[in-house]
Amino acid sequence: IFTRGMQTVTLIPGDGIGPEISSAVMKIFEAAKAPIQWEERNVTAIQGPGGKWMIPPEAKESMNRNKIGLKGPLKTPIAAGHPSMNLLLRKTFDLYANVRPCVSIEGYQTPYTDVNLVTIRENTEGEYSGIEHVIVDGVVQSIKLITEQASQRIAEYAFEYARNNQRASVTAVHKANIMRMSDGLFLRKCREAAEKHKDVKFTEMYLDTVCLNMVQDPTQFDVLVMPNLYGDILSDLCAGLIGGLGVTPSGNIGANGVAIFESVHGTAPDIAGKDMANPTALLLSAVMMLRHMGLHGYAKKIESGCFDTIRDKKVLTKDLGGNSKCSEFTEAICQRVRDMN
Amino acid sequence: IFTRGMQTVTLIPGDGIGPEISSAVMKIFEAAKAPIQWEERNVTAIQGPGGKWMIPPEAKESMNRNKIGLKGPLKTPIAAGHPSMNLLLRKTFDLYANVRPCVSIEGYQTPYTDVNLVTIRENTEGEYSGIEHVIVDGVVQSIKLITEQASQRIAEYAFEYARNNQRASVTAVHKANIMRMSDGLFLRKCREAAEKHKDVKFTEMYLDTVCLNMVQDPTQFDVLVMPNLYGDILSDLCAGLIGGLGVTPSGNIGANGVAIFESVHGTAPDIAGKDMANPTALLLSAVMMLRHMGLHGYAKKIESGCFDTIRDKKVLTKDLGGNSKCSEFTEAICQRVRDMN
Ligand SMILES: CC(C)[C@H](C(=O)O)[C@@H](O)C(=O)O
Ligand SMILES: CC(C)[C@H](C(=O)O)[C@@H](O)C(=O)O
Repeated sequence: IFTRGMQTVTLIPGDGIGPEISSAVMKIFEAAKAPIQWEERNVTAIQGPGGKWMIPPEAKESMNRNKIGLKGPLKTPIAAGHPSMNLLLRKTFDLYANVRPCVSIEGYQTPYTDVNLVTIRENTEGEYSGIEHVIVDGVVQSIKLITEQASQRIAEYAFEYARNNQRASVTAVHKANIMRMSDGLFLRKCREAAEKHKDVKFTEMYLDTVCLNMVQDPTQFDVLVMPNLYGDILSDLCAGLIGGLGVTPSGNIGANGVAIFESVHGTAPDIAGKDMANPTALLLSAVMMLRHMGLHGYAKKIESGCFDTIRDKKVLTKDLGGNSKCSEFTEAICQRVRDMN
Repeated sequence: IFTRGMQTVTLIPGDGIGPEISSAVMKIFEAAKAPIQWEERNVTAIQGPGGKWMIPPEAKESMNRNKIGLKGPLKTPIAAGHPSMNLLLRKTFDLYANVRPCVSIEGYQTPYTDVNLVTIRENTEGEYSGIEHVIVDGVVQSIKLITEQASQRIAEYAFEYARNNQRASVTAVHKANIMRMSDGLFLRKCREAAEKHKDVKFTEMYLDTVCLNMVQDPTQFDVLVMPNLYGDILSDLCAGLIGGLGVTPSGNIGANGVAIFESVHGTAPDIAGKDMANPTALLLSAVMMLRHMGLHGYAKKIESGCFDTIRDKKVLTKDLGGNSKCSEFTEAICQRVRDMN
């Protein structure tokens, strides 16, 4: 059914609490009258010719057609040789930039206030190359691969992001004192991008120094750009500062508008199906998605509905410090969103 | 001059504020009547045959003879091809374990209290192998080298450390979900060491998860053991939790009792020679050294003198929130130490 003015998004509910939090997001989008039509797809990996693991063709076709996806948590693969589907999705659709805004949520108390930063992680290479060898018995090497092309692409992206989101500075995070050639190349590309974007302040900092400064005063940071593994680490660290993965959104951005937005928490099998899950991370990821699609009004409305509900403290899920069910928290947000329609 | 009952330690004062904080430590040791004789050596690198950078022979000879060293900060090398002297020292003396206790200091306020953990970092290989190549123009690889021998050695060390220091648990920090072979090998060796040390609890955790949990609740951690780069990151992060590199000690431990203890902060050239530096990190490193040498009574006395002075808040250097000079802070500690003699 094609509805006029609607845009179709591929929805990958995922495993564990994935379906519950996905349906919470759908309800809130409906309450907000957001012009989004969902196309549900499963991404449980299948084995192609030669035993190669791949995304099911229906999911791939849907993503290729819609270009935009929203994804819940996927369970960690158990079979040997089975890839992480999260990684396979990033790779299949060449989602080269992983963007994670970390903004303190008013009313949700953590050791830090006024955190307002964004980590931008190179999402396709580096330590995640998957190239490893046994040299001789007991000696293993893993290869970190850094290319000029991917470094330039992510550096450019970071500066474009800063400009488009009214952010004043970009910090390149590296260990070029140790990995002089690989991180050196990454850093050089950041410096070159900085030259082209003189309106955005540029600084560079060692990863260890960033971690130390981050826990001492996160407010000094704005946009941070870094190679793959450093981004994995730093994005989780920063999520911890504002309350954890249950409240932090994430977007994986590729070329030509292709993007998958996802909650990065686990599948929480212990509470799955019990109406206890917190849909905030997936909802805020969906809000990022709306902004990516240019639907700023809907984004603002849904985001406000969510933040107002948290600030109000009356209806919160357990992990947020309350006693309410997922469905009650969802309905509280829907109510606020409807009031804003 | 050989003084009866004295043990000789190689002292590398270092650059910038290094000489001032070294002399502060010497004064406090003297006040405590610690049976240590200092042998000062310079480690500014020299070029050997073929242009190879090396530790000056006088420093090397001294370390080889005394086995124990105390080191202030060294300036970052500027000449191309000039190695980091910190790294060269670790390598030259095969100091395979970098040990950094992070313990909250009473009276010195930070966002966290009751932090009491130790990071144990593999100090010789991993991402610090220094092996890098340009594959083709614009494509660089850095090699992370993990060996069975070094992994086993550090894993064993971590469990021995836990046992000898009355610590209940060891957590292996890894990304074996991504670097399955290299981190996988490291992790396997940790599991094997755990099997041999059933009196110490063993857990394993992804590096990103550790970072997130660390900023949310550091009190859940005890001894953490990890490959080189992860240790670089995590030790700085943890230092940040308790007040930064100005108050955190560090020890680099090798085989057969060889060890170099060092402050890991910078040379602070802006305040060098102005009697403003904080000697705490070097002093606490020297306290670690005393314990390593079995001189527990002197260690306790000096440590108490330092912590009591900080708790008292009357005489503190600027970075600790006070107005006193380095010499005044030092004298305050000396006074307390003398009172305990
Ligand atoms: C699930 C895992 C493979 C992934 C990673 O290491 O990148 C996760 O930690 C993330 O940050 O998205
Ligand atoms: C000085 C530098 C080479 C060093 C490192 O990266 O190991 C430092 O950060 C440390 O932690 O001792």
